[in-house]
Amino acid sequence: MDVRALVFDVFGTVVDWRSGVAREVRRLLGERADAAAFADAWRDRYAPSMDRVRSGQLPWTPLDALHRASLDELLSELGADDVDESTRAELVMAWHRLDPWPDAVPGLDRLRQRHVLAPLSNGNVALIVDMAKRAGLPWDLVLGAELVEHYKPDAEVYDAAPRLLALPPGQVLMVAAHVSDLAAARARGLRTAYLHRPDEFGGRVDPPATDPDADLSVSSLVELADRLGT
Amino acid sequence: MDVRALVFDVFGTVVDWRSGVAREVRRLLGERADAAAFADAWRDRYAPSMDRVRSGQLPWTPLDALHRASLDELLSELGADDVDESTRAELVMAWHRLDPWPDAVPGLDRLRQRHVLAPLSNGNVALIVDMAKRAGLPWDLVLGAELVEHYKPDAEVYDAAPRLLALPPGQVLMVAAHVSDLAAARARGLRTAYLHRPDEFGGRVDPPATDPDADLSVSSLVELADRLGT
Repeated sequence: MDVRALVFDVFGTVVDWRSGVAREVRRLLGERADAAAFADAWRDRYAPSMDRVRSGQLPWTPLDALHRASLDELLSELGADDVDESTRAELVMAWHRLDPWPDAVPGLDRLRQRHVLAPLSNGNVALIVDMAKRAGLPWDLVLGAELVEHYKPDAEVYDAAPRLLALPPGQVLMVAAHVSDLAAARARGLRTAYLHRPDEFGGRVDPPATDPDADLSVSSLVELADRLGT
Repeated sequence: MDVRALVFDVFGTVVDWRSGVAREVRRLLGERADAAAFADAWRDRYAPSMDRVRSGQLPWTPLDALHRASLDELLSELGADDVDESTRAELVMAWHRLDPWPDAVPGLDRLRQRHVLAPLSNGNVALIVDMAKRAGLPWDLVLGAELVEHYKPDAEVYDAAPRLLALPPGQVLMVAAHVSDLAAARARGLRTAYLHRPDEFGGRVDPPATDPDADLSVSSLVELADRLGT
């Protein structure tokens, strides 16, 4: 594979959203919520909220605003309508403060020596930048949904990566822990690497160990660096 | 000033385009051209070529392609129509291989500790990424003309910085060695810092020592870090 750039799904693939969101929910809501269940319920609203944008039901809306709308619904269902504005705003920032999986920074630090690295996430640019500065993720640039005002798996998001990098799609490798993301990337001509993250959903979902349709399947970003010879 | 993000003009402000382009012209054309004069003549076509896009005479065209068209004209004027395709392609890459001014990396390394840093250049994304990896410029993300398919000083380029960073324009500081760039940024609500680069044009232009309309005037990025207390 002659791969020049690697683009990454972020939530679940590079960072552990579940424990990070639960940590902030615990800090900000205390006994009022089961933190892990709250994180799961919030995440369950993620795809449906983006689908409202993808279908045209909503105009382009950055992920922070979708997270906020889902949060307001969740708090209402919990009977917690009294949670104040500043607490809600801080809760939305939980998604900016997610910790990387332990192999992420060591793997990316190796991969960046010979490749261009960029997130290709549905997270808005400010979220991805805040997360990277806090966690030390060594991105060369930020790509993703907000730049083209489309959410994955819309083709526009994948197409923008080789276009902006001035590379043929076959020299761009999409790395993700979700086979549907990889299938959509492959349909646009990108190469694909599946990353097995068995703990992403805290046991609620059991992702496959490998993706037979991907060019590579690995279980860490350090293993990906090994496989790419960097 | 409550500044959270710094956005930078690149050609002339962060990197020395003149000596870098001349170095590559010397390497690739040897005795066939006066390298410094060739760099100046190429640069002279920069603003007019972007104006053809800004006026609608040309559709959106990334800077690499504008550089290539200007190069072909220049070679023709020099009577060098026989320069082959691969040499022309390599010459265009000269703009990806520019060296930073000596204060740039030390200044940016300090500034990035407390601020988000991004180029806000007319250079296309691939050019800016190649340059940053080669020179060690520690950008947090890449902003600029290609993301919005408008060239500076079009308002769209400046407006995209606070929008994508989710900041009020007054928390974004534009840094440039050109007063016209700063004036256009200020018109969109950004704060401005003028950087005096007396050697940019090799003595052909004598830029002012300060810009009285800017929030700050400095003579290096290290001085900017001092002034911002980082």
